[in-house]
Parts: sequence; C-alpha cells; structure tokens
Amino acid sequence: MDSSVNESGRVVFMNGNLVPESQAKISIYDSALMFGDMVFEMTRSFNKVQFKLREHLERLYAGVKILRIPLQMTIDEMEKHCYETMEANDHLFASDDEHRLMIDVSRGTLGIYQGVQGLHKGPNVIIADFPLRWTVASMGSLFDVGINAVITSQRAIPGHLLDPKIKNRSRIHYLMANIEASSISGDNNWALLLDPDGFVAEGTGDNFFIIKGNTIISPEGRNILRGISRDYVMNELAPQIGMKVVEKNFDAYDVYTADEAFMTGTPFCMLPVTQLNGLPIGNGTVGTKFKSILAQWSSNVGLDIETQIKNWNIVDGKNQSDAPTPYRFKK
Amino acid sequence: MDSSVNESGRVVFMNGNLVPESQAKISIYDSALMFGDMVFEMTRSFNKVQFKLREHLERLYAGVKILRIPLQMTIDEMEKHCYETMEANDHLFASDDEHRLMIDVSRGTLGIYQGVQGLHKGPNVIIADFPLRWTVASMGSLFDVGINAVITSQRAIPGHLLDPKIKNRSRIHYLMANIEASSISGDNNWALLLDPDGFVAEGTGDNFFIIKGNTIISPEGRNILRGISRDYVMNELAPQIGMKVVEKNFDAYDVYTADEAFMTGTPFCMLPVTQLNGLPIGNGTVGTKFKSILAQWSSNVGLDIETQIKNWNIVDGKNQSDAPTPYRFKK
Amino acid sequence: MDSSVNESGRVVFMNGNLVPESQAKISIYDSALMFGDMVFEMTRSFNKVQFKLREHLERLYAGVKILRIPLQMTIDEMEKHCYETMEANDHLFASDDEHRLMIDVSRGTLGIYQGVQGLHKGPNVIIADFPLRWTVASMGSLFDVGINAVITSQRAIPGHLLDPKIKNRSRIHYLMANIEASSISGDNNWALLLDPDGFVAEGTGDNFFIIKGNTIISPEGRNILRGISRDYVMNELAPQIGMKVVEKNFDAYDVYTADEAFMTGTPFCMLPVTQLNGLPIGNGTVGTKFKSILAQWSSNVGLDIETQIKNWNIVDGKNQSDAPTPYRFKK
Amino acid sequence: MDSSVNESGRVVFMNGNLVPESQAKISIYDSALMFGDMVFEMTRSFNKVQFKLREHLERLYAGVKILRIPLQMTIDEMEKHCYETMEANDHLFASDDEHRLMIDVSRGTLGIYQGVQGLHKGPNVIIADFPLRWTVASMGSLFDVGINAVITSQRAIPGHLLDPKIKNRSRIHYLMANIEASSISGDNNWALLLDPDGFVAEGTGDNFFIIKGNTIISPEGRNILRGISRDYVMNELAPQIGMKVVEKNFDAYDVYTADEAFMTGTPFCMLPVTQLNGLPIGNGTVGTKFKSILAQWSSNVGLDIETQIKNWNIVDGKNQSDAPTPYRFKK
Amino acid sequence: MDSSVNESGRVVFMNGNLVPESQAKISIYDSALMFGDMVFEMTRSFNKVQFKLREHLERLYAGVKILRIPLQMTIDEMEKHCYETMEANDHLFASDDEHRLMIDVSRGTLGIYQGVQGLHKGPNVIIADFPLRWTVASMGSLFDVGINAVITSQRAIPGHLLDPKIKNRSRIHYLMANIEASSISGDNNWALLLDPDGFVAEGTGDNFFIIKGNTIISPEGRNILRGISRDYVMNELAPQIGMKVVEKNFDAYDVYTADEAFMTGTPFCMLPVTQLNGLPIGNGTVGTKFKSILAQWSSNVGLDIETQIKNWNIVDGKNQSDAPTPYRFKK
Amino acid sequence: MDSSVNESGRVVFMNGNLVPESQAKISIYDSALMFGDMVFEMTRSFNKVQFKLREHLERLYAGVKILRIPLQMTIDEMEKHCYETMEANDHLFASDDEHRLMIDVSRGTLGIYQGVQGLHKGPNVIIADFPLRWTVASMGSLFDVGINAVITSQRAIPGHLLDPKIKNRSRIHYLMANIEASSISGDNNWALLLDPDGFVAEGTGDNFFIIKGNTIISPEGRNILRGISRDYVMNELAPQIGMKVVEKNFDAYDVYTADEAFMTGTPFCMLPVTQLNGLPIGNGTVGTKFKSILAQWSSNVGLDIETQIKNWNIVDGKNQSDAPTPYRFKK
Repeated sequence: MDSSVNESGRVVFMNGNLVPESQAKISIYDSALMFGDMVFEMTRSFNKVQFKLREHLERLYAGVKILRIPLQMTIDEMEKHCYETMEANDHLFASDDEHRLMIDVSRGTLGIYQGVQGLHKGPNVIIADFPLRWTVASMGSLFDVGINAVITSQRAIPGHLLDPKIKNRSRIHYLMANIEASSISGDNNWALLLDPDGFVAEGTGDNFFIIKGNTIISPEGRNILRGISRDYVMNELAPQIGMKVVEKNFDAYDVYTADEAFMTGTPFCMLPVTQLNGLPIGNGTVGTKFKSILAQWSSNVGLDIETQIKNWNIVDGKNQSDAPTPYRFKK
Repeated sequence: MDSSVNESGRVVFMNGNLVPESQAKISIYDSALMFGDMVFEMTRSFNKVQFKLREHLERLYAGVKILRIPLQMTIDEMEKHCYETMEANDHLFASDDEHRLMIDVSRGTLGIYQGVQGLHKGPNVIIADFPLRWTVASMGSLFDVGINAVITSQRAIPGHLLDPKIKNRSRIHYLMANIEASSISGDNNWALLLDPDGFVAEGTGDNFFIIKGNTIISPEGRNILRGISRDYVMNELAPQIGMKVVEKNFDAYDVYTADEAFMTGTPFCMLPVTQLNGLPIGNGTVGTKFKSILAQWSSNVGLDIETQIKNWNIVDGKNQSDAPTPYRFKK
Repeated sequence: MDSSVNESGRVVFMNGNLVPESQAKISIYDSALMFGDMVFEMTRSFNKVQFKLREHLERLYAGVKILRIPLQMTIDEMEKHCYETMEANDHLFASDDEHRLMIDVSRGTLGIYQGVQGLHKGPNVIIADFPLRWTVASMGSLFDVGINAVITSQRAIPGHLLDPKIKNRSRIHYLMANIEASSISGDNNWALLLDPDGFVAEGTGDNFFIIKGNTIISPEGRNILRGISRDYVMNELAPQIGMKVVEKNFDAYDVYTADEAFMTGTPFCMLPVTQLNGLPIGNGTVGTKFKSILAQWSSNVGLDIETQIKNWNIVDGKNQSDAPTPYRFKK
Repeated sequence: MDSSVNESGRVVFMNGNLVPESQAKISIYDSALMFGDMVFEMTRSFNKVQFKLREHLERLYAGVKILRIPLQMTIDEMEKHCYETMEANDHLFASDDEHRLMIDVSRGTLGIYQGVQGLHKGPNVIIADFPLRWTVASMGSLFDVGINAVITSQRAIPGHLLDPKIKNRSRIHYLMANIEASSISGDNNWALLLDPDGFVAEGTGDNFFIIKGNTIISPEGRNILRGISRDYVMNELAPQIGMKVVEKNFDAYDVYTADEAFMTGTPFCMLPVTQLNGLPIGNGTVGTKFKSILAQWSSNVGLDIETQIKNWNIVDGKNQSDAPTPYRFKK
Repeated sequence: MDSSVNESGRVVFMNGNLVPESQAKISIYDSALMFGDMVFEMTRSFNKVQFKLREHLERLYAGVKILRIPLQMTIDEMEKHCYETMEANDHLFASDDEHRLMIDVSRGTLGIYQGVQGLHKGPNVIIADFPLRWTVASMGSLFDVGINAVITSQRAIPGHLLDPKIKNRSRIHYLMANIEASSISGDNNWALLLDPDGFVAEGTGDNFFIIKGNTIISPEGRNILRGISRDYVMNELAPQIGMKVVEKNFDAYDVYTADEAFMTGTPFCMLPVTQLNGLPIGNGTVGTKFKSILAQWSSNVGLDIETQIKNWNIVDGKNQSDAPTPYRFKK
Repeated sequence: MDSSVNESGRVVFMNGNLVPESQAKISIYDSALMFGDMVFEMTRSFNKVQFKLREHLERLYAGVKILRIPLQMTIDEMEKHCYETMEANDHLFASDDEHRLMIDVSRGTLGIYQGVQGLHKGPNVIIADFPLRWTVASMGSLFDVGINAVITSQRAIPGHLLDPKIKNRSRIHYLMANIEASSISGDNNWALLLDPDGFVAEGTGDNFFIIKGNTIISPEGRNILRGISRDYVMNELAPQIGMKVVEKNFDAYDVYTADEAFMTGTPFCMLPVTQLNGLPIGNGTVGTKFKSILAQWSSNVGLDIETQIKNWNIVDGKNQSDAPTPYRFKK
C-alpha cells in the first residue's frame, strides 16, 4: 500500500474529517476524475497570516455556482474549516514556513457510479495545507535574472468554450504549454499564451503585465484567470505607488517595445519578465518599477518577499534551482 | 471513513495491485487532479468477451505519447492486466452482466509535491471493472422513441486548443453541455455540440451520424473523438450491409433534412436520434437503416444488443428510466 | 376579402395617404418582401407625448442612407407626418393608452417587377400608430420576478456581415432565438445572444446591461442595435443618479458575478434580469439600482412606468400574463 | 389608391383566393414584414411546363419546418394550387412566355398585433405567376460576353448564423452586395460572395461553378443556397455529357486558374462567367464546356434556352440591355 | 546599362558609402528580395528640417530587433548618417523642396548564397533622400474635395500573422488593395482595409480617423501601423486645440454616421476623407475640425502644409493631378 | 564598391542582358523592394536537364496575371531566356553540379519614383542560374535521420489575406517561423505551419505529407503553395508505385499517429520527417514508403537523388552539416 507511511504528520480536511495527507484521495469514480469537474483555489500566508483568503473563497463559490455543483457548505463554514486545518498543521511548519492552502470542491460521484459502495455522498470538499516553499523553492534566482516568456503554439482557450475565469481542473492545455516551453533553448522559460485572436492572454498559472512609462498594462480580463494577485497589483499596489493601470488588448509587439514586464501568481507574488522569446524587454534587466511594486507589497505584508523565497532556495547548502523540478518542466 | 465498507467485493488494478473498488483513489496531489492530466479508455464486453480492447489500448497509448506521460508499461502488459482484473472480478458478475473496463493513466505526482510521503512514484495505471448495466440501465426506452438531440450554446473545443481526439479528463465542457441539454423542455434530450465553425461535431461522449438514402454521413474526424464504435460502423458494419460511408462537414440543416440519424457510444453501441431540437428527423420514428445496422452488430457479436439493455432497464420490476440518473442530468 | 372589416377606425400613413389600418399592406413585389429590404423604427409616447422621436428618425435616416434607399422625403417632413398620423388616431386611444408608432421605409418595387400595374412608384413610407399596451400587456409581472436571460445557440450576426446597428427587417435570426428560448424549461425566458467571439451582445429587440457596484456596464456598441433607450440610460439617467457607465466586452461569467442586470427596450423602457440560464444574478431578486434608474425615468417622463404596464396587464379582470402571447413564444 | 388599376388581369393565389396581382399584398403587421420571416421559392416553366416544381416545394417545406411556421397546407395541396394559379393566368401569357411562379409562405400576424382587425389568421400562402421574361430580359448579351464576377467586401453569412440553405427573406446582404458590385467600373458585373473563411460561396441568387479539364467544381453546399439548377447540373446534366463533378472549398486563385466558370439560376438556367474582378478566366471567352452543358439542358427541355432569352431581349425593336434595370443595380 | 545615366546628382547612403541614386541597388540574393525581409522608414522635412526623425528611427530599431536582424550600427550612428546624406544632397534641392528620407535595413545575403562573390557582408543599411514632391504632387486637389475611402475585399492581415506594426516590405497586400480601389467608379478612391473581425483598420500606408463632436476616434493600435503622424495628431495636436482622443474598435456604420473623417501619412500629413464607398460622411465636404487640426500642424511647423502641396501640384503650368500616377493606381 | 569582384564568371539574365552575377541588383525604388511585389520560381535540373520548367513558368505567369504585373514577355520567350542563361553559364558548372534557376518578375519602378534617372522602365525579368549544391549541401544527413518538424506559434496566413499559392516575395513570416524553429532544442528542426484553423499547412518552402497504410495524405491545396514537387508525388509517383493519394484537412494528432511523414521541395525533392515536436512519427526512423517514392523519383530522372546530395555534403573532406548555414537558422 502506497499510503502506509506518512512521516509529515500533516492532515487534510476531507468532508468534515482531518485525514493524513497521504490519505487525501479522490475516488476514480468521482466527477473530478471523470470530467476534470473540480473547482479549486490555492492560497498563501505572509508570516503565517492568510492573504486575501476571502477573495479566493468568493472566486471559488462563483465557480461552484456556475458549474452548478450542489454544494451545501456556506462560504463562512468553508473559511472556518480553512482555519481549523491550518491550526491542526501549524506545529509542523518551520518558523520560516508559510501555509499554502489548496481548496478543492468536486461534484462527487456521478449517479451511474452509485453502485460503488463506501463512497462519500455529494460534493467533496478538501482543504490541504502544505509549506509554500515546495512551490517556489527553485524560483529565487528569477528575481535577479527574470523569466524568459515564450509564446507557445498552444493558445489559450477562449472563455466561451472553457472559461479560464472559473478556476477548474480541466486544464491540461496549461501543462502542454509548459512542456512546449521547456523545449525551447535556454533557461527560465515560462509559457505565455496568446488567445485565438493573437492577443497576449496569460501564463499557465500566472497573469502577465507590461509597463510603459508609469502605466501598468494588463490584458482584458477575458480569456484569462482574473488572479487575486493581479487584482491586488491593479487595485491596491498601483495606487499606493502612484502608477496608472490600464486593461487592454495587446500583442507581442507591445511586449517587445515595453519598458518592463512581469508575472503575478499567488505563491511568488511577482516575478520579473526580462525577455520575450529570448529578446530583451526594455534593457533586459529587472526593472525599477517592478522593484517598486514588489517593495510596496513586501512593505504591506511585513516581510521581504524576494528574500524569503531566495532563502528557501538554499536547502542544506544546496541551491534548489539545480534540483529536478518537473512543475514547469525545466530542463 | 468513507472507505470502510465495500460490499461488492470487486477489485481495481492500481499500479500492480488489486485493491477493493472503494479504495481505488488518486491523491489530490496527482497531476490528474491538478490538471485533468489523465488519459483513459472505457470498454465493454459482449457475452463477457471484450470488444476491440486492443483498439482502445492503441488509442490510449497515442494519448500517452502525445501528452508525454512517461509510462513504462507496454501495451501488451496493459492488455494482460486488463484480463487479470476481469478474471479477479468475473465471479461477482451476474450471468447477464457485461464487463465495462475503465482504464486510466495519469502522469502521477508533480515534482513540487514530492514532499508528500507515501505516494506512488511515476505514472498511475488503474483498471476498473464494473457492470456495464450501470451506464445503460436507463437507456432502454430510447431504442423505441429515440434521442432528441439538442444543439447547445456550449460548442466543441477545436482540436488545436484541446484535442478531443486524445481521450482525456479535461472535459468539463462536456458536462456543462449535458446540464444545458437537461434544461430544455421534454425528455430524452442529449447534447449535440457544434464546432466553432458551426458544423455538427459530436455528442458529449457519443459520435453522431446522419443517413441520407443509402449513405451514412459522419462529421470529419477533426473536432471529435474518433470513437471505436464509430470506426466499427463505418469500416465494418456499413460494408457488411452494403451501405456507403462519407465523412464530411455538415450542419443543422443537413440533420433536419436527413432520413435518419443516430449516435454511437461504447456502452450502448448505437441509439436512434429521432429529433433535432424537438423537430422530427425523417418521419420522427426509429429508422429502418438504423435497425439494419444494429441488427448486423448484434449478429456479429452474438447477442441482441437492444434486448440486453432493455432487460437491464427493469430492476426488481422498477423501470430505471424513472430513477434519478444524474449522468446526463435527466430531469 | 380579409380587409373588409376594420372596427378600430385607426389609420395608417402610406405614401401620403391615411388608409385604414387593415389596408396598410405591401405588395409581394416590393423589395421589403423580396429582400427584407426595409428600415424601420418603433417609438412610444409618455402621456401621449412622443419620446425621443427625433432620435429615432435620425437612426432611421442613417439606415436609409447606408442601404442607399432613394428616399425623397426629408426628416422634417417625416416628423410632421408622424404627428399628423397620431392626430388622426388620437380620438380612438383610451385615456390611459400611449401611441406606439411604427415607421417603415422600403425601397419599393424592384425594376424587374415594374410590369405589375397599379403599384406605388419609389420608396414606401408607412407610419402606423397603435396602442402601446399591445406590446407590453403581458410584461407587468416581470417587474416583480425579473427575466431569465437564456443564452441561445443562435448567435448574433457580426456587423460586417449584416449590421444590427441598421434597424432593418432581415432579422429572422432574432425570431429563431426567441423560439429557442421558449424551449427552455421555466417561465420568463428571454433570449440573450452572444456574438461569434462569445461576448454578450443583445436580446432580440432589447439591449442588455449589468451593474457592478455603482457602474452600469453595456456591451460595446458593435454587434448590437444601439438602442435609443440604451443611450438614454447611459447618457442621461445614469448621470442624473450618479452612476458610472462603461462600454466593454463581457461574457457570461461577468453576468453570473454581477450585482444586477437589466434589459432596455422602447416599449417597456427597462425590465430587470434576475437570472442567467436559470441561475440567480446577485441575490436573484430585482435590484435596488435597477429600481433607482427606473424611478428616475418615471420621474423624468411624469408617469410611473411600471404601474402603467401593470395596469394594462389587467383586462376585464383577466391577467394578460396568462393569455396566449406568441411574440416571445412564451409557452 | 395605388391599387385602383390592374391592366394585366393576372391573379395571385392568396390563402385560398385568387386576387388581382396588384392586390397581392401583405399586412405591415405580418411576421414577414416584421422579421423577414417568410420562406419562398421561385420557379420557371419550359414551354409552359413547370420544371422541378416538386423539388422547389420540398425545399420550401424544409424551410417551413425548420423555421417552425405552423403551416397546415400539405405539399400536395400546395402543388395543386400552383397549377390552379397557372391555369387561371395562362390565357394572358404570350405564346413565347414562360410561367415564373413565386411561392411565399409567411408565419402570419404576430400575436401582439392581433388587435388589428380584418387580417388573415395563421400563415399566409401566396402563389404569384408572372412572365419569366421580366427577370431575364436584359441578360441575353451575357451569353455572348459573359459575366464579370466581382468579389465584394460583403461576405456570405455562415449557415450557423443565418442559413442560406433556407430560402428566406432576411437577405438584405444580397442586395447590398449587388449595389457594391454595381460600383465597379465596367459592365456585366455580378457580385460573388466569399464566405468568412475566404472560400468562394455563391452569387446573390445564383450558384457559382468552375471547370478544370473535364471536371465541374462547386463550393461545398454549406454557406450557399443549394440551388435546384445546381443540383440539375451536378446530378443530371454532367453525367449525361460525361463530365465529372466535385464539391470542394476553393478560392479566388482557383477561379483565376480555371478553364471556365459559370453561374446557375432558375430564371436563366446558366450564364457564362468569363472574368473575375476584370481578369480573364481561361481565355476570357465563353467556354466550350459551358456550351455543351447548356446545349444538353436545352435538349432535355425541348427549347433553346439561350435563344429564348435573347429573343425576349428585343421589345419593340429596343434592346432591353439598355433599359433601366435596377434588379442588379446595373449602371 | 540602365545605370549609365544619373542626371540628378543625388546620392544614397549604402553601407557607409554615398553612391549615385541610380546605383542604389540590392542584390537579388539579398534576404530583402528573397523574403521581403527589410524594415524601413520614410520621413519628411518641414522647411528642410526633419520631423520626428528620432521617432521614426526608434520604430525602425524596434523592427530590427523583433525581426532579429543582426545590425551593428547604433541608432545614433544611423541618425548621423541621415544628416550626412541630406547634407550631401541639399544643394540639389529647390528652395521649396523638402527632404524625404527612405531608410532601409535588410538582413543581407542569406548564408546559402554566400557563393556569390562581391556582395556586401551583413545587413544592408540604405538611406535615400529625394524630393517629397514626388510623392504628393498629385494630391493637392484632395484638400478641397476629399478622399473617397473604399472598403476593399482585401482585408488587413492581423498582427499575429504578419505584424503591420513592424514597418516591413512584405506588404504586397497593400498594393493589391490599391489596385482594387482603382477599379471602383469615381475619382479619389483610396483603399480602406477592414481587419478580419470587420473593424476599420487602416489605409494602405495611411492611418484613418473619424471625428464625432469634439472627439477624434482612431482604431486601436493593433492591426495597423502606428503612424508617427497618427501619434502626433493624437498626443500633440489634439490637446493643443482642445479635442479629445479615443482609440477604439469601430466599423463602417460609425464612419457613415461620423461628422468628419481623415487620413494621416507622413508625406501629406493629413487629408480629408469626405466619402465612404461613395456616400457622404457628415455633409460630404471638408470638415471644420479637420481644418483646425491641420492649421495647428501648419502653425507648429511654420509652413502652410496644404498650400505647399498644392503649389507642387503645378509643374510648368500643368496640373499633376492629371498626370499618370501609378502609385495609387488612379485611373 | 561591393560589386568590384566577381570571380565566378556566372551571368544573370536581366531584362534582355546577361550581367555578372554580382551585378544582378534591383533598385531600391523598385516595387519589389517597396512592396515585396515580385513573383518568382526556383527550379532545378537532373543531370543538367531542367525538371518541370514549363510547370514552374505556368505558375509564375498565373501570379503575374493575378498581381496584374504588366509583363509583355510571353511564356515561350521566358522559357527561351532560361535556356540561354543556362547555356551561358554551363561551362562554369562542375560535372556533378545541377542548374538551379531563380526567375524573378517585379512590377518595376513605381510611378512616383520615375524622377530617378537611369532605371529600367517596366517590369523587371531576372533569371539567375547557380549550383543547386548551395541550397542542399547541408541536408545529406537528413536522409538518414529525418527532419524534426516543429509546430511554430507563427501560423500560415490564409489565402484570402495573402495567397501562398502565388509564389511571391512578401513572405517574411516564413523567415520568422524558421528563426522560431531554430530556438527549439535539438538538431534538424524545420518549421511546420498550422493555418489559423489549426490544420497542418506547410513548411516554410516545403510541402508536408503523411502516410497511413498505402495512402499519401496532403493538406488541401488552400493555405499552402501548391508545389511542383507535391504535384509530381501525388499525380505521377504515387500512381507509379500503386499508392493512393488523398487531400484533406488534418492536424497534429494525425501526424503523431501516422506511419510516416515527409516534406517535398524542389531542391531536395523529398526528405523524411521522422519526428513531430521531438516525438517519433511511426517508429521514428525513415520509412519504407518514403524510400519507395524517392527510389521511383530517382529512377524516373536517372540519378540517385539522395546520393547526389550526400556527395555534395562533403567539400574538401569537410561535412557541410557542421558549417554555418543561416538559411534555416540552424544552430
């Protein structure tokens, strides 16, 4: 049995119970595994305090509604369970760890499979809680050299066919784009998806921005996930530091001729994008505006985001950037 | 614990072991649950003999290759495990049951989650084996009245964005189309997807055909799954009964003006489609050509397909068509 | 002869003459009946005073120009004839009636049919004048429960193929969408068209809006009719009550996550949209912002719009909502 | 009154009655004039014998069904009324005239306009019968010089938005294309529509063909009307003279490099297309294959089609090509 | 030999040398002639002072970067060579002439053709300098009557396929559109391209604007060249005279219903567009807003732009508008 | 001066004259350099006998016609000049060389540049003649290992925007795709373009084929150049060896699941494609069907095509595959 060993001690909320992390599993008859039919959120803490948890949950519940998952749990109950789960795990987290929650809601076992005995009835609610460093340990050096965004032949799926604004698990095309990006020569390649009209859409789990002068420009919130971090940059950080924000359609030319570019994502907050398809954006180094926005973010949350990630990068004196990291299919 | 009871005794092949059906589960950290990153096949037997199993496995392995899942198991080994699984379960199947196999291959735990202890390393291979009647018990009456195909506002995703020819689990849009079809007045509604160009593509797990004169017409094998049943109709049954087969683009007008229409799917083989959007196709009754093709199929496999399904329809004297059956979100 | 009886006494302006309503007819050889080649406007009065008549006529003349109909009548003459027609009919209108004008301009008899004797030469100009209650008698209850907007598989035709901004009679696709909407379970379904890019476009004779916070959001004025009522809401009512207005592309997700939604149309002014595809918008009841805008409109025109329509709803103590009303193919 | 004079004596079938041609009119409240909601057919005779009348009526009834017009009249009754109408008019036709029938079916008065008194209840059925020469009198010289097909910026509307295969009256875009074609320098310009993918679709009332070697090539029957004449060429004439027929997508390049091209339409049967956008097709003269096909047609119907039209071209010694003929907006 | 005579005395900068104008030639083996692989700019002077030269060069260098031409010359060096070239030619320019620079950069000889002896190694840099009057001599009367913009069937290529924002020589479709425009009846036709979505894009070397009220509206800077003159109008002239500027998608309807329209281009600055497809825009005459913007431009640069061009129009008493001018394929 | 040395002695036909190869140049004022406005053909010989020269010239003249280049030279004259040029150069070709002709026709100097003295009047006709080995010297090893076709984010431009069937010089997008392909890890990458619908179109100068069983499948001749070599394979070689040929739309899935794949191009005739995006096609080695087709070609032309190219691969004992070869931007 795979599940016989669980050294971590971490537990996962599953439909009202806290189960060992290695036991957090979904039946193969669940709609999540039949149809990719699961909505989810992934959050993070700063100094162990959850950031924008409520906003994440509201987006989760929008997806639950639109996908018509008959979930009975209220958003307040869900929030409470998030805190219970963290409380149960907190003693296992190092002092410099952060809580990364993964909240999954699936429709549950489809009717025709109700002949399978012993399965949970109704939607599944799962709340996992693990160290944020897992996700970002290899990213520290990107704050210095920046990402090379590469436009893949894989394009974003438009919202009227499969809506990226609903954060769900039917997303193998993001993985395919990651694999494609890893086939490009050079390090630090991250996929950048165009939508079918040729406009820049998003990364495969990240939002993309360019900066021209004092203006931050983001793709229209259409064929992209509307990231919580994206909203934070646009609606809180930019005003704090006096930058203007515009949402509009733009394409590769605008990126090539921008002053700076960056991506946002919950685990790393912001990373600089210094190249597009191997060509420098601006002067090809990490931009000053990027640094200002990130500094404001660090200030707001009371810790140095970049330093924290860089510190996680060193494990037992070994730089994690050199470790095998299949998540983005880095060569 | 959900998994404490397993009355059926059926077992599922999981990475080399046969585990109780209710224990056949996938970790929430698996790529299958992160990205809908799992290829699969679902088969059936006739008189307990698997039908076109090798063709199903070849399609499975095409998907494994294109999605670059580093599966080590050969197709011959996979086939052997299918038979082992059925052998282990066969004594639990009623004499009139058929084996429905569900074969899943996922990429496995993504690198960043390798901090979770006790998980299987590498791709997951799962072979479940359950009674076919689960899937088709409510379909018997459709052989008499036919399906009402309804064109949904949800359209098929074109193959260059998310290829339906690779049978994978990122398919929530099929479920959404089913829900949409269930909102239409009337019974027996099944969703029929148009592709973005407005051509008829496929059902949400079924292939669609029209008949004009002596010719069976199927959409080009482009924005659809190329069903094993579809191939069987086109390349074996049609020649046997002297019908011509054409693959071409067609649209709703062609369906409205066709003589007959039908759908194919592994569990039910073929079902007549007697209406489109509530309007009769041909004279609105089950067509003679349909009956001829199905009769040939029954003859080839040595059992009456329609009768078998209709018999399953009656459980303890209760017609299953009236039971709650969420699979197609029948009202 | 169909036209032998005309109890109403109402007259219609036809090419300079006032003819009985039942005699207001167009030759089958007219371009209007050959090609759907007719531009039109439909207006209403408040307390028998025409509302935005000049704006309607200006839109009419834009269509006349672009379709190159060789109309000789000036816009001032047209306006005068509108008033003459109302004057001739006014004594037949009940005290609580309103004048609904329908102004049609067709190209006239095509050259090849000039062998038909006795037909009018040149473009036809027709001004009909009938009680507004005909159109809205069944709508009263919608002010309380709201419309369920349903996205149909029928999509809007983009402006470069057949421009919806030119109000013309080649519009059978609107009727098809109405029929499709009537096939959905539930009452109060009105069709909502997406454009081919998947953005929300318009209803089939109505403009659609959502409200988020203090902002009214309308689709860009591209693949839609630019309604006179829409302009009034955006440019006059919204400023009066301190709301912001934005035109932008949005899709179903934005509607599902909006606070409120509504439609505008000349006969009913505004109706609340409380559901999309059967799911609640906001809390699923008529919104306070909607009520504020409508109240301002009522105030501006000096009558309670909602009450007037609800009163028309009762005819001889019979609620018209239950009467057969084929216009929107209500079941 | 426009209708006071009717010198011709011809009558039109209207809902069971034969009325004078000038009285064949539709109420402005009819769905035909509200929504372009009318299906129709236009036929012709050869030596006063109707050609393919039943095929025309079958297409008409397909449209009636798809548009869900609640017509009670059977196709046999409709056919009978066609013959009755011709019989009533035949004594008025010159010995060298042919009967052109125009058969219109509209949905009738919409429910909300049932306040108008004296209107026909239910769908309207109209059968007009007039001399074919009206339509083709100016076309005689085209048999010698050929049409210059001009690709307009107006494109065909794809079938999933407004199906050209249903012959209906929402077709103002055809008229717009005709007007656009008339703005091009040179005589004999007929509009040729591309579909939105850039493939050649059809003329504005005509089907288009090219010939390469011994093969007649026609656009796929998708974004076009599937003409009765087109079917006759493809399925009867081509086999008779040993030519091969292919339906496929092609574009302007294929026309420029074809050997010959032609258009088909009911009134004129076939006309040669000798130029595309002013450049010669083949050697720029009327092709021998065209002549062979037309000769076969003439032989089959027992009269010389070209000569008949040319003879109609001369009226009182005046060549009709020079007369004002707004139908195609010839300059 | 063609090149034996060079009466003008003008010289062209070619890779460091000044050569006679007639000797300014590119090898047939150069990538510019193999792939249309050359970026370029064309500028003008006012009173012999270059206008926005640096902006032109920056756009040039953006193209060089994106097309990955391995140019070694810095932008400062390039600018210096521009001035050297003008200095060498200036004595040959009439007092009322202006310098039009054409700056070309090609990739150079492709590797496989390095067997050809005697060719320049590496990218070619060419700076030609000729009298502006060549380009605009026939345009004087357009300031009085305005351009008739004609929408061609040739559409703009979207930026993700071949980016018009990179000013390069793969642009035969612009020439094809010019030829198409010349086939339309009437004088003063200039092509206006729609993009594939049907929005107004640009002329074939000019940017297009409409004016409504006090607002100048320009297509979004997407499927168009972002002209230096366009930027000047939007960012400098409009503010100077108190007009508002908006970039948005618009279509033919908006042009037909605009108050005014105009085009911008480096050689002529601004020209009024008084018709679209032969229909008047506004009242069909040159608009007052247009005149104000142009007056401001003239004021800023210290010469009357319109008068200068009109004066060039007269050569030896002969109006150049009547001369053969193949550039726009004027009939 | 670049042009001072010309060691080769080869001459080029330019507008009636034979000039030294290094003098074969086009004025910067020519339409070819202004608009990429030049049609061309590139041919080859076998044993110094031109192959399908007439077919190449016919395609050239189709382009001349459609682009409306006012060329006076007849196709027979053009053919004669090709032979004259080869005759003049033949003594300079090694015994194992082959003649590669490059035939260019440009529109000539645009009217507005006729102020430049000493330029050729009217269209330019250029015929260059150089050793075929230049083009193919590095390709020998590809016959053994095969091409890795890589799908680029750059897509083919559809024919209605810029027709690839007209072989012209506005083709920088092909070069961009080559550069993109060179950024992928691994050797032997050649770009494979999808059209905007996601179908496989062509390479950037090559046609693409797959083989399934005994059938050769080629994309429909729509968004591709219809290669002379493609035609030869489909219409002459395939019948000779008893293979079937089908033209149809296919996508990446079909390539991944094909038995074999190959590209055709005039210089190399045929090369095997053994991988798509780094994944094996069939078993990933050069296929037997490929070898049969190539063997037939070699037999037909009387020389071993593969051996000839491999021999050219060795120059002075140095394998040219290792040499810098910028044509396909091989790393």
